[in-house]
Amino acid sequence: MDKGRAYNFSAGPAVLPVPVLEQARDELLDYHGSGMSIMEQSHRGKDYDAVHYEAMENIRLLLELPEAYTVLFLQGGATAQFAMVPLNLLPPGRTADYTDSGSWAAKAIKEARVVGDVHIAADTHEDRPTRVPGVEDLHLSRNPAYLHITTNETISGAQWHAFPEVDTPLVADMSSDILSRPFDPGPFGLIYAGAQKNLGPAGVTLVIVRKEFLERVPGTVPLYLRYRTHAEADSLYNTPPTFSVYLVCLVTRWLRAQGGLTAIEEANRIKADLLYAAIDQTGFYTGTADPAHRSRMNVTFRLPTEALEAQFVSEAEAGGLKGLKGHRSVGGLRASIYNAFPAAGVEALVGFMADFERKNG
Amino acid sequence: MDKGRAYNFSAGPAVLPVPVLEQARDELLDYHGSGMSIMEQSHRGKDYDAVHYEAMENIRLLLELPEAYTVLFLQGGATAQFAMVPLNLLPPGRTADYTDSGSWAAKAIKEARVVGDVHIAADTHEDRPTRVPGVEDLHLSRNPAYLHITTNETISGAQWHAFPEVDTPLVADMSSDILSRPFDPGPFGLIYAGAQKNLGPAGVTLVIVRKEFLERVPGTVPLYLRYRTHAEADSLYNTPPTFSVYLVCLVTRWLRAQGGLTAIEEANRIKADLLYAAIDQTGFYTGTADPAHRSRMNVTFRLPTEALEAQFVSEAEAGGLKGLKGHRSVGGLRASIYNAFPAAGVEALVGFMADFERKNG
Repeated sequence: MDKGRAYNFSAGPAVLPVPVLEQARDELLDYHGSGMSIMEQSHRGKDYDAVHYEAMENIRLLLELPEAYTVLFLQGGATAQFAMVPLNLLPPGRTADYTDSGSWAAKAIKEARVVGDVHIAADTHEDRPTRVPGVEDLHLSRNPAYLHITTNETISGAQWHAFPEVDTPLVADMSSDILSRPFDPGPFGLIYAGAQKNLGPAGVTLVIVRKEFLERVPGTVPLYLRYRTHAEADSLYNTPPTFSVYLVCLVTRWLRAQGGLTAIEEANRIKADLLYAAIDQTGFYTGTADPAHRSRMNVTFRLPTEALEAQFVSEAEAGGLKGLKGHRSVGGLRASIYNAFPAAGVEALVGFMADFERKNG
Repeated sequence: MDKGRAYNFSAGPAVLPVPVLEQARDELLDYHGSGMSIMEQSHRGKDYDAVHYEAMENIRLLLELPEAYTVLFLQGGATAQFAMVPLNLLPPGRTADYTDSGSWAAKAIKEARVVGDVHIAADTHEDRPTRVPGVEDLHLSRNPAYLHITTNETISGAQWHAFPEVDTPLVADMSSDILSRPFDPGPFGLIYAGAQKNLGPAGVTLVIVRKEFLERVPGTVPLYLRYRTHAEADSLYNTPPTFSVYLVCLVTRWLRAQGGLTAIEEANRIKADLLYAAIDQTGFYTGTADPAHRSRMNVTFRLPTEALEAQFVSEAEAGGLKGLKGHRSVGGLRASIYNAFPAAGVEALVGFMADFERKNG
């Protein structure tokens, strides 16, 4: 453990890479000899300009995005996108298809229904063990504007490991697994992600959109809520959340230094495998997600009783393993092990789990 | 000048108080012994909870807001509010009255026109010297939903020094002079301000709204875009920009320690008076705003030629006086001297101006 740092298993806002935080700290009052913080500088000045475009370019390089896609930095998190997606991509008279895979998908669906016609193409939100839909579960509407998926359900701990192959563009909420693995962007019309799990701090939202989709927006949509407005201005239509974008720049630079998404996927696989193996070893711990759909970002499990779960959380916390309590809506335990979460922290948790079971099993 | 710090006259994102930046730096990797940054913590945890509610309470105390008002932290800056205001407060069949006092008012008007019917109640945007409307300029529509004003035009350097007394609720963009002076909130139905001038970093927007106004919103407006949604959740409907709110908390705590808005208004008056006196002293410098409407936040002035202006900016910059170039749309010089801008910086600029005139006048 780095001196004075806890192992932070929070689901988001979540742990950031220590070298990123150290750099942000060291240049907080004087960015590159400018005599001011990067957060005190004009978003049209040369220092911020370099940060802004490097962050975009790092994302483009990490995801190997073709020219057909635009990278945007917006605000309001995934929740704002729940509204912007149908406002921009769902013309009157068409239907948007959504998969209901859990709490986050449900929020996207609830908002889309305020905007237009929604068809539920698959519903696994009540399945236990928790899971996301398989291709065999999908029943699309006749001519959907898009099919929306939530690639990782942070609360239930279920994740899409292969994306559906369908004849309509995919729109994906990737808030909790963006940049955790390589994938082919081709089937996607739009991808969005709040930053606070794998990208940086809360307050900036990554949107990746096919350029041809920018034209779909009806003229009744306010200018600020049109993707096109932000695309035409390189996300400088209004003042961006400059310090948050700066941190995204540092995080994506760090990811490239780790070897990019192939390397980070392998590191994430090793961390998740180690933790799931510990869960499966005896009957004391029980994973809550279907093994075929287990998330490599949010590992959810239960203990024999709620009293033991509370004791586990409290003793783990005392030992510097923080944020392990499951989401209030489902209970249980949750270990969020995003890109920046260190392998040593997973090893520490696995050791703690064995100890705890020995004493209480 | 603090060691290594420039005098930062940027119009926004703008200078922050040095003690605020120092505190943010010192606790960036370990917030109050938690072993993590405040930006790595859950927005539902106790550390962030304390920050969130203290920031709200500080604003309430500084502005002496009655219970009739709700304080919200949103995202998207004033630009998002240009859309949210009419979406929430302008019901179909009514008219919204706007004053067109310059560049920022024009942006608010342009967006409101996408949403509903707009009436221009006064138009001073082409007046030179630049000014805001007086009460005698106002011609309201028959039954407006509200009258929108931009209390300080950052680009032209004109500011409302007294607010219009009318029979309709005022809605105000106070982005560039919020918390710079005390005022009676009574006539205001809604006040909004991007944080990046007087409140903190870019990425959080303060909205103060009369509770009764929360009910006006039509059911066709997406949930995320309704003030009511955020009011009912204490601005925790979705993940707030936690680090930005944390900085707002520190800035408002600093403002209270300075003696609150009466004291800060006096400090701002002294800074502005000193600078305008230097401008008026000879014919070399010319203020661009009508003396009765001069902004205490953004002091705009010209030199005899554009060549001298360019030389002024460049020599000032070399002397550690940064960000003095006027907005690209109007040219000239602009010294933004928000709350956190030190009096010593104004004195340094006044000294530089005298020197520059002696050498080039």
